[in-house]
Amino acid sequence: MAYQALNEKTLIGYLRSRPTASELFSKDADLAVTEVGDGNLNLVFIVVNRRDPGQSAVVKQALPYLRVAGESWPLTRERMRFESQALLKYNELCPGLVPKVYDYDEGMSLVVMEYLSEHEVMRKPLVRRQRFPRFVDHITTFLVNSLFFTSDLYLTGPQKKAQQARFINPELNKLQEDFVYTNPYMDSPENRWNPLVDKEVQAIRANSELKLEIAEMKRAYMTQAEALIHADLHTGSIMLNERDTRVIDPEFCYFGPMAYDVGAVLQNLVLNYLSHYAHTQDRAQREEYQAYLLEMVRGIWEEFARKFEEVWKENARGELMPAKFWDYPGGGEAFAEYRRRTLRRLLQEAAGHGGVKFLRRMMGIVSVWDISSIQDPAKRAVAERAAMRIGVRWLMERKSVTGAGDLVRLVQEETRAITG
Amino acid sequence: MAYQALNEKTLIGYLRSRPTASELFSKDADLAVTEVGDGNLNLVFIVVNRRDPGQSAVVKQALPYLRVAGESWPLTRERMRFESQALLKYNELCPGLVPKVYDYDEGMSLVVMEYLSEHEVMRKPLVRRQRFPRFVDHITTFLVNSLFFTSDLYLTGPQKKAQQARFINPELNKLQEDFVYTNPYMDSPENRWNPLVDKEVQAIRANSELKLEIAEMKRAYMTQAEALIHADLHTGSIMLNERDTRVIDPEFCYFGPMAYDVGAVLQNLVLNYLSHYAHTQDRAQREEYQAYLLEMVRGIWEEFARKFEEVWKENARGELMPAKFWDYPGGGEAFAEYRRRTLRRLLQEAAGHGGVKFLRRMMGIVSVWDISSIQDPAKRAVAERAAMRIGVRWLMERKSVTGAGDLVRLVQEETRAITG
Repeated sequence: MAYQALNEKTLIGYLRSRPTASELFSKDADLAVTEVGDGNLNLVFIVVNRRDPGQSAVVKQALPYLRVAGESWPLTRERMRFESQALLKYNELCPGLVPKVYDYDEGMSLVVMEYLSEHEVMRKPLVRRQRFPRFVDHITTFLVNSLFFTSDLYLTGPQKKAQQARFINPELNKLQEDFVYTNPYMDSPENRWNPLVDKEVQAIRANSELKLEIAEMKRAYMTQAEALIHADLHTGSIMLNERDTRVIDPEFCYFGPMAYDVGAVLQNLVLNYLSHYAHTQDRAQREEYQAYLLEMVRGIWEEFARKFEEVWKENARGELMPAKFWDYPGGGEAFAEYRRRTLRRLLQEAAGHGGVKFLRRMMGIVSVWDISSIQDPAKRAVAERAAMRIGVRWLMERKSVTGAGDLVRLVQEETRAITG
Repeated sequence: MAYQALNEKTLIGYLRSRPTASELFSKDADLAVTEVGDGNLNLVFIVVNRRDPGQSAVVKQALPYLRVAGESWPLTRERMRFESQALLKYNELCPGLVPKVYDYDEGMSLVVMEYLSEHEVMRKPLVRRQRFPRFVDHITTFLVNSLFFTSDLYLTGPQKKAQQARFINPELNKLQEDFVYTNPYMDSPENRWNPLVDKEVQAIRANSELKLEIAEMKRAYMTQAEALIHADLHTGSIMLNERDTRVIDPEFCYFGPMAYDVGAVLQNLVLNYLSHYAHTQDRAQREEYQAYLLEMVRGIWEEFARKFEEVWKENARGELMPAKFWDYPGGGEAFAEYRRRTLRRLLQEAAGHGGVKFLRRMMGIVSVWDISSIQDPAKRAVAERAAMRIGVRWLMERKSVTGAGDLVRLVQEETRAITG
């Protein structure tokens, strides 16, 4: 049907008009609708049958403009096509780690999917110091399966390009290109930062060596078409509980650098680590949970690398490189070395993209809730300064990073002086 | 109209059915048609009005299979769409450096273009030691204009991706992926090499460090979507005379690494240089022409770099990076450093891709005429051995290359022992 933005009232009639809804809800269903979108681009409705709350769904509809900036920043609604295509692909490659998709209406820029009533967006429970014993396993399976199996390491050239063509996503790319890699480091009216860290922000904007490295990372973001990446995999795009993890909101997806997704996860956990200098006053409690978070950072990289190499060895059929290329005396060792070099490169690139993302969160258009929820500007500045210092070091020292321990060490070195 | 492969007889009726032909040829034209294709993928007809030889055209039609391999290697005819799109784009960016396009028939996989009756494919006159005083200027303008103006250095993100989407070219990519970066270095039935260099060929196939670098270059070829590249810019894709230069046959075009095109030109000139150890017996004559060719290699890089930086400074509007990113005290120097680093990277990548291409021509499916026309296998082996040694060094030492002089020096070091 022709596009119209739905509201809590019009949504029910719309759902009743779709065949899928009759499969989801019984005929006598009494549907309750709540709009809960806190994102910037979309309406999000939760629909529950009051008579049987097990019957439920989430309806996500794209708005034709960037919500946070008002109607002045037009974006085509085609982004819902990217989100839906990615969710379908993820359901195929990583079942159980994303919401199920029930229906997709291209004309309405709308997708109907599983309602995750028992899951919570990850930022808040991390601030509450909750633990997620299965998260490392889940997120690394998501990363490995979504990245490896859409890359040239697994696909033939034509298979990869056919997928790539369906995920050319210029407008959402442009948001990240501007808001991650460009605008925060120059005068731009939407930038926001804590006046208490103004000196640090201005120093970053005038640091030529740093900006040259940011330009390198932006080039990678714009040209390195390695695999289907989520491209917005912060802890606000993860819903979970102690048993289950789901990745949501892949509307920024495209064929880009694999390391971007890995870096986003690691960097967001470190931002949460920093937020505890304000959120957790009890020092023992804080240090214990911070150690848990750093162990998670280390564990995610190590488990990612282990699983990535495992699936690669078991599926050495991709264009880069077919097994026959390594089929000669000594070739097995060369293939092992190729895997080692590839994973080291991915770690270094993850440090680079993650490093830039520390900076953009401190001085660009959008902060993260973990930090922005710190009411006292002075306490917030403590975390922000550390985040900027860590970001600079992850980025500038990335080429000498050889293991997750190096990333953790840089965090520890830059936070040693903070005693809260 | 529905596809059918044309022949010298059916072509005339076809041309008469197209409106464009009536613009090209007078009504009473007496058309002479000759099929001259020596490529691997297409039929090529020259059409001339016997009554007025100034009325002429070339008709190029894609075959549905790879001609050199017979009908067993199917390729879709869509490649003619890529060739035509690229020729049109090049006519826009580099007018006068490609043939004019008169007509394009997608259903027939056919393009009608300017007949270059006064131009010759570059390989043969190079073997005859002909000089082309305007070639360096022409080819560097072609390279700079076609690469810079389709890159993120000039375009906005959305502009670049819109173009990129039109040039996703999986099947022709696959040919280069296989025949440049993979098959020559492993057992593959189509490989051909001189038995006299068998030892060298086998050593390359078992050289793990080398193969790891080949894998790196293949990854770049497959993932580095920098600009619209020709992707087959050897001296057989250049037609010229002393006044005029035209780049032809861009059917392999796609958004790939800019350095691939630069490396192809430089490497083919060096292959021609090597061929003169057999083709030119008079030592003084040979050394003089070889010096001319090496000067051309140096001149092409230096002129490319000069023009590239010039258009960049004049058009600093692209996504990478907008002028405002460098707008701070010291930013002008940082932008200059960014240009320097970019050009050094391009030179190093050109050495890498060029290095691989030396190897593939000696041990893969297709040699080059400069070398394959050397009848005496022993004399041919002299050139082939040197080509492989130079290829290995351009590839393995590329990261320490800082100027064209380094590439020239490696050629000289590896040919010093040859005295003909």
